[in-house]
Amino acid sequence: MRRRDFIKGAAVASVAAGAGVAAPMAQAQEKIQWKMVTTWPKSFPALGTGANYLAELITTMSGGRLEVKVYGAGELVPAFEIFDAVSRGTAQMGHGAAYYWKGKSEAAQFFSAVPFGLTAQEMNAWLYHGGGMALWEEVYAPFGLVPTAALNTGVQMGGWFNKEINTLADLKGLKMRIPGLGGEVLRRLGGTPVSLPGGEIYSSLKSGAIDATEWVGPYNDLAFGLHKAAQYYYYPGWHEPGTTLECFINKEAFEALPGDLQAIVLTASKAANLDGLSELTARNNQALHTLVYQHKVALRQFPAEVLAQLKKVSDEVVAEIVSKDPLGRKVYDSFTAFREQAAAWHDISERAYLNARRG
Amino acid sequence: MRRRDFIKGAAVASVAAGAGVAAPMAQAQEKIQWKMVTTWPKSFPALGTGANYLAELITTMSGGRLEVKVYGAGELVPAFEIFDAVSRGTAQMGHGAAYYWKGKSEAAQFFSAVPFGLTAQEMNAWLYHGGGMALWEEVYAPFGLVPTAALNTGVQMGGWFNKEINTLADLKGLKMRIPGLGGEVLRRLGGTPVSLPGGEIYSSLKSGAIDATEWVGPYNDLAFGLHKAAQYYYYPGWHEPGTTLECFINKEAFEALPGDLQAIVLTASKAANLDGLSELTARNNQALHTLVYQHKVALRQFPAEVLAQLKKVSDEVVAEIVSKDPLGRKVYDSFTAFREQAAAWHDISERAYLNARRG
Repeated sequence: MRRRDFIKGAAVASVAAGAGVAAPMAQAQEKIQWKMVTTWPKSFPALGTGANYLAELITTMSGGRLEVKVYGAGELVPAFEIFDAVSRGTAQMGHGAAYYWKGKSEAAQFFSAVPFGLTAQEMNAWLYHGGGMALWEEVYAPFGLVPTAALNTGVQMGGWFNKEINTLADLKGLKMRIPGLGGEVLRRLGGTPVSLPGGEIYSSLKSGAIDATEWVGPYNDLAFGLHKAAQYYYYPGWHEPGTTLECFINKEAFEALPGDLQAIVLTASKAANLDGLSELTARNNQALHTLVYQHKVALRQFPAEVLAQLKKVSDEVVAEIVSKDPLGRKVYDSFTAFREQAAAWHDISERAYLNARRG
Repeated sequence: MRRRDFIKGAAVASVAAGAGVAAPMAQAQEKIQWKMVTTWPKSFPALGTGANYLAELITTMSGGRLEVKVYGAGELVPAFEIFDAVSRGTAQMGHGAAYYWKGKSEAAQFFSAVPFGLTAQEMNAWLYHGGGMALWEEVYAPFGLVPTAALNTGVQMGGWFNKEINTLADLKGLKMRIPGLGGEVLRRLGGTPVSLPGGEIYSSLKSGAIDATEWVGPYNDLAFGLHKAAQYYYYPGWHEPGTTLECFINKEAFEALPGDLQAIVLTASKAANLDGLSELTARNNQALHTLVYQHKVALRQFPAEVLAQLKKVSDEVVAEIVSKDPLGRKVYDSFTAFREQAAAWHDISERAYLNARRG
């Protein structure tokens, strides 16, 4: 009989093989129950259901030995308090986006989205095969958290406005919901960035508490009804070209798992990362169609000159912000070097192909 | 004590809980050993190592209950015989590309690459959230196989030539290694497509048995030393814009697994699918740099007019081929409808962003 590793604290069971059958292996483990708290409304399309999917994968692959229960924003803790809640062990897992925690660490923002940064494909390449994941672990270690990439939105939309954006001056004075480094770029241009969890965006925009907002893309934006609060819908999302949504795990809880369950948690995250991007890619166009043809939204491309200026300002702002923090600088250097490489390759592959297919 | 599902044929163990500890769950299973045969040279960069990675994920997540051993092309069976080998149960898993099996089913080719078809991100969206996976299962069911998407190469390179390609006429008379539907387009243009496993490409090109070849992208092409056999390296890979590499599993063996191990096999494939794309995205530019600056390869973009004509011919050829086969037609209809949607969304997201970043 082959001996198995038993989970810490579980009893060693005596196993007697059934008569006439080859001796089976025995595995005796306690059932572990984890809570996953999220920044999303419960089962919100793609983001909340992406968290559910991750939890289901872990529960199913572990044969129920590790059962994960998902809580929507505000069910156990408010959206923007999940980082602290998992850090102190109130819950074992969190599902959100790293730029929500820039108050904890400026460096965290690089693991969600950087203006004119990496696309989804490039972001995953940096994280899994370009050194990014190890840096993210370093950034979250002081908080007792293990991060994983758990979903990617792809290129987001540029946002919802109640006026046309023809020059950078049109952004001046704008109070806009835009998190992370994109928000810092808006600040540099004379606007006021606001960070709000998804569930508070519509009412804030409708009431005039904010003038403009970005959220994700057509599928998610339609679900919140943002077209009922603003008229112009801009692309592309220069500030979030491939946003990684995260899962983070209480480090002590993670390290108490046996090796197979640790592998299950990490691999489930990687699969959920791809699955969520796939879902949004499959759903966005139909939602865009509904927005434009049914709800008469004015779809607009940012003028090329505005995008060129935004890129210049973005690169300056991002470099300045990280210069205050040694770990931020280290992450920035890795990210920036990777972006140069990835952009060179994608210029002659993804970009050249998409332009050729378009004709 | 919670009852667990036991693997078919394993004994039901009597379990006595250790004294003074809460009753543990019991899991009694035989150790299962599977063979994975591949079309790639053993541990070939990214493709062979991607198969290894998939096998390791399954073995680790199952805590060794399902152990998968990988065999390179020719170790157990020749590269192009793995489909039959897994179909008849000589091995339980195979790792290859669906267009290698067009002799079995024309429809199979849609699950690897279609000229001017879907990018990696779009391909995964179609498979996981656009109905593609169910169609693939339908195509492989008569062979007793369960397919999974197990890796994606991203946009490939257009290939290696010993002369410049300035017009479609330059493709006439060319004997080129190019599999699947891309090969059929070449045939329509007066060339002779040849399907060869990777391990036979270099010697065939060097000896003059073929005049030109495509393989994957810089990282893989450099590994085979293709620059030592041809001078011109063309982009973009119009014929393979996001090739899915596959894993297929003997259906009987898969269905004999308990639910947790089935979930582990499928989820490991999804994670490996993303991981392989990430690795190639991270490695291709450095390899391209080596090819161009160290080995003095002549990097060329196909002329816009050539690409436009190739697109026209591709769309005609693909439509013709499937028209002979009802299942092929069904897959074609799904694929084509999805491409229209995905291209519309990516025109204003991925494409618009990549062009804006490039400036």
